[in-house]
Amino acid sequence: MKYCSDCGNTVISTVPEGDDRLRFVCSACDTIHYQNPRVVVGCLPVAGDQVLLCRRAIEPRYGYWTIPAGFMENGESMMEGALRETREEAAAKVRNVELYRLFDIPHINQVYVFYRGDLDGEFGIGPESLESRLFREDEIPWSELSFPVVTDVLTDYFSDRREDHYPVRCSQPSPLWAEQVGWK
Amino acid sequence: MKYCSDCGNTVISTVPEGDDRLRFVCSACDTIHYQNPRVVVGCLPVAGDQVLLCRRAIEPRYGYWTIPAGFMENGESMMEGALRETREEAAAKVRNVELYRLFDIPHINQVYVFYRGDLDGEFGIGPESLESRLFREDEIPWSELSFPVVTDVLTDYFSDRREDHYPVRCSQPSPLWAEQVGWK
Ligand SMILES: [Zn+2]
Ligand SMILES: [Zn+2]
Repeated sequence: MKYCSDCGNTVISTVPEGDDRLRFVCSACDTIHYQNPRVVVGCLPVAGDQVLLCRRAIEPRYGYWTIPAGFMENGESMMEGALRETREEAAAKVRNVELYRLFDIPHINQVYVFYRGDLDGEFGIGPESLESRLFREDEIPWSELSFPVVTDVLTDYFSDRREDHYPVRCSQPSPLWAEQVGWK
Repeated sequence: MKYCSDCGNTVISTVPEGDDRLRFVCSACDTIHYQNPRVVVGCLPVAGDQVLLCRRAIEPRYGYWTIPAGFMENGESMMEGALRETREEAAAKVRNVELYRLFDIPHINQVYVFYRGDLDGEFGIGPESLESRLFREDEIPWSELSFPVVTDVLTDYFSDRREDHYPVRCSQPSPLWAEQVGWK
């Protein structure tokens, strides 16, 4: 950030009075421009013993398999955002939707919130997907998943499925992931 | 938003190509300035059959009782943010911290994420609090709580406590709250 979005003058990086961290503050109108983490919402569609994944048609990780997810928008709930992404990326609807898996990724200022739900009817692809497909556990392309959170959600899901118990968990993504898939 | 934070020129509100909603787009450098919901993180400190609340020393709702909470900062996890707010507002530490209660408040573009934990040692007040106090269930000042989410977390907590079962729930705040406390 270089300029004030309210008045167009330059901002400086300084610790405002009563605060304890650097903020961008306008040199003219004194507005403090806070910057906060963003929320990514997604949903794992389940059909019997299969889950629905999409192959990414966009960078980063073009061509890798992912769970429908994207940035939460103003004016929607987390679940509404997750269902919107499921429609947009997999042309799919889900029902019996439950909160499932949260992640903190503090080094990129993101929070992930995944739901899971029963696939309801047909599915297809949206503009951000090359392909959509149902996978049984033994078919999951573990080495071709897009992001650490996708690996973790799928690992947890198939594990929880054996117990028929799906607690809501929150963690950082598995640190092993990068070396497992050769992520740079 | 009126000016581009990258280059200082004016922004226009338009639907970018491939998008389906209005965004602020710079008229000079074409940067799209997305605006997304913010996350508020908090923690309910528990001590035996009591919970710790703080009386707000700031607007809005100056003088009303609240659970330590505030905007999540870049570079921290949700739990780290919740513990930071607990330190800042109640001068308190907690242990055995568990994810507990999520809220969507889409009309103000906010998500709330509350943890609960055991109060660890002393407590006090920070610059944003007039007073901190432990309350048993029959002492909770229900008509003097600060926000709908506070009422809902406390209602759920004392109910869950009777079952000794604390599922992670996500909802919008109770719509009854405004009339219950005369919130305008
Ligand atoms: Zn300004
Ligand atoms: Zn610009």
